[in-house]
Amino acid sequence: MSEKNPAAEPPRLPLTGLRVVELGHYIAAPFATRLLADLGAEVIKVEPPEGDPVRGWGSAVDGNAVWFSVHGRNKLSVTLNLKDAADKAKLKRLVGTADALVENFRPGQLERYGLGPAELHAVNPRLVIARISGYGQDGPYRDKPAFGAIGEAMGGLRHLTANPGQSEHPPPRCGVSISDDLAGMYAAMGLVAACWQVKGDPAARGRIIDVDLVSSVFSLMEGMLPEYGLFGWVRQPQGAAIKTAAPTNTYPCADGKWLCIAGNSDLIFRRMMAAIGRPEFATDPRFASNALRCENVAELDAAIAAWTRTQTGAEAEAILEAAEVPCSRLYDMRDCAEDPHFRARDLVMQVEDPLLGTVLHPAAPFRFDGVAPRDMVRWTGPAAGAHNDQVFPKEDAP
Amino acid sequence: MSEKNPAAEPPRLPLTGLRVVELGHYIAAPFATRLLADLGAEVIKVEPPEGDPVRGWGSAVDGNAVWFSVHGRNKLSVTLNLKDAADKAKLKRLVGTADALVENFRPGQLERYGLGPAELHAVNPRLVIARISGYGQDGPYRDKPAFGAIGEAMGGLRHLTANPGQSEHPPPRCGVSISDDLAGMYAAMGLVAACWQVKGDPAARGRIIDVDLVSSVFSLMEGMLPEYGLFGWVRQPQGAAIKTAAPTNTYPCADGKWLCIAGNSDLIFRRMMAAIGRPEFATDPRFASNALRCENVAELDAAIAAWTRTQTGAEAEAILEAAEVPCSRLYDMRDCAEDPHFRARDLVMQVEDPLLGTVLHPAAPFRFDGVAPRDMVRWTGPAAGAHNDQVFPKEDAP
Repeated sequence: MSEKNPAAEPPRLPLTGLRVVELGHYIAAPFATRLLADLGAEVIKVEPPEGDPVRGWGSAVDGNAVWFSVHGRNKLSVTLNLKDAADKAKLKRLVGTADALVENFRPGQLERYGLGPAELHAVNPRLVIARISGYGQDGPYRDKPAFGAIGEAMGGLRHLTANPGQSEHPPPRCGVSISDDLAGMYAAMGLVAACWQVKGDPAARGRIIDVDLVSSVFSLMEGMLPEYGLFGWVRQPQGAAIKTAAPTNTYPCADGKWLCIAGNSDLIFRRMMAAIGRPEFATDPRFASNALRCENVAELDAAIAAWTRTQTGAEAEAILEAAEVPCSRLYDMRDCAEDPHFRARDLVMQVEDPLLGTVLHPAAPFRFDGVAPRDMVRWTGPAAGAHNDQVFPKEDAP
Repeated sequence: MSEKNPAAEPPRLPLTGLRVVELGHYIAAPFATRLLADLGAEVIKVEPPEGDPVRGWGSAVDGNAVWFSVHGRNKLSVTLNLKDAADKAKLKRLVGTADALVENFRPGQLERYGLGPAELHAVNPRLVIARISGYGQDGPYRDKPAFGAIGEAMGGLRHLTANPGQSEHPPPRCGVSISDDLAGMYAAMGLVAACWQVKGDPAARGRIIDVDLVSSVFSLMEGMLPEYGLFGWVRQPQGAAIKTAAPTNTYPCADGKWLCIAGNSDLIFRRMMAAIGRPEFATDPRFASNALRCENVAELDAAIAAWTRTQTGAEAEAILEAAEVPCSRLYDMRDCAEDPHFRARDLVMQVEDPLLGTVLHPAAPFRFDGVAPRDMVRWTGPAAGAHNDQVFPKEDAP
């Protein structure tokens, strides 16, 4: 990052010195702690002896899951059997040295292990505990099985991710584990906020934070809830268009790519129609304002699509960019990995992974003055138990 | 929340005492500060005299946007003209009393106002500054116009939100301003982390945080980047299904509702096929394992859809729930607002808004022991400038 705060102290990640224990598996809790680890926290991931099941997901090299290189980066991994009394005692000693803990067991499971908040606070009264679950730690659905798509479906998002009136195809998944990701982000945010409260106050006590997948998705529903309450309106899917702006849509290109265009301001609209060889639209009174364009959007979208179909995605993008029309191809992973901006910003970085060889890692999603993105990837996801000896020195063995 | 930490101090929001100035508009920065305000921070939203343009978006009562009741809640609003020397001086005095500032102007705009990080740190060397932009504060795309869908498209998400091979319809929008939301969440998280670093260290200096829409979306791409780097694989959209699990899909119901079902474990699969009156599938060797079911998924999905089409969404859900099969209708806003779990958890709350009357508000997406969800909604989005006199007492007037 080019921007420097001249008064800054030597480069240091903001959470350096914060110690966090992860009792996590799959996505939500490990994503929360990965963000904390990117921010500089010392994260100790506690796994069962056979490792987090996520280590078996997706493509792998010599049995090492590729995703885990990113998902487990900047963390220490230790293995413990939470049903074993000696290992439980080890965990409690570790918790005694920590500032915070993140867990995403089913509600009640940690208590059944004898490791609920009461037991953890008995060991460390200042501990901040962030709990992630499908539906939350109370309420009638607390014990229902949670699965990846539940937050997306029940939180209101999947209903909206659809083309209107298109009944032959189900609304697609978001494409990533969005509800787990959002819950992980909120857990990390709540955890750091509680640590801010505890820090520097000798009388402060730890906190318990309850984050769930459904609420996390539901938090993104903009003004839809008060709108329903006041008017009884239920927001319906709008596909790739926006009803109140035209032309704003996604158009097919000759090479199968899609191009997202936001050309709804009057000036941009006129530049755009000239650039695609349809200047007559710019002077046609039926398209003179955004409101009129919304009324006649079908004809307008058809004309734009007729042009995009004659161009590859990259060609159409270049022509519209030269005319200063906001647009973007729908990037796939190749587009992202090869994009000059992504490379210039070190948003895509080559990293050496001892388990996988040379791999590409995404940058942390936040940059801090004086800290290069590369300095935020300290190491790649380690093997399960790689740090047992470091975290539990031999004299601590049973 | 039922869980209590017996050692807890009196109920207090975690960020009580943190003072944050918002120079934000539209979605990303105001969403960041709304989350901080929900957490108890004192957020002072600085608006132009005519108000944040988002106040004119969507449905309204007497000119007051319904969304703003939520988007602006728990904040103080003051109006300043950032081109005016006297107002600039007022802002600087305010910044001198703050811990942090969030802004989402186009890169360079704050500097053109003479209010860049150098000027702000001259006033307050400990200030944490979070900056949100479309593409980041540097790199070749820094000055390109950003628009709502750009992060979703360029960050790799929109490519995935699609049905495979379905070329007649464009991939739909996520349905909400997902890239703004994610960037706001990361800005809030980075800001609190930097405040944690500064707190209690008299020698600490403020930080500058750079968050952008594209990186924020790109951070959710799981293992896709290292997978592309190692194998050249480019993840393609999978619609509502998951290639490696069956049956896991979204099925149409008689009332036009969609039902998301995750029935891919052997035991759940057998319970499910019995519950829908197709027990012969449970004993058919072609469907005996998840791997075999993935091979023969078309026949399986057709049988399940033939059954869901005979039921309303609520009926099908009830039958499958009784058989302990994880499932959920795709909730629309009515489903959310009327759901007993949402009501029991105060995830949906009736709130009095002086500008709108009785409105429904969503809970904050994190809960803290000893703090009721209702205590986290202290007031609704205020009128522009409602707190001018409180924040800038009369003797401060020019």
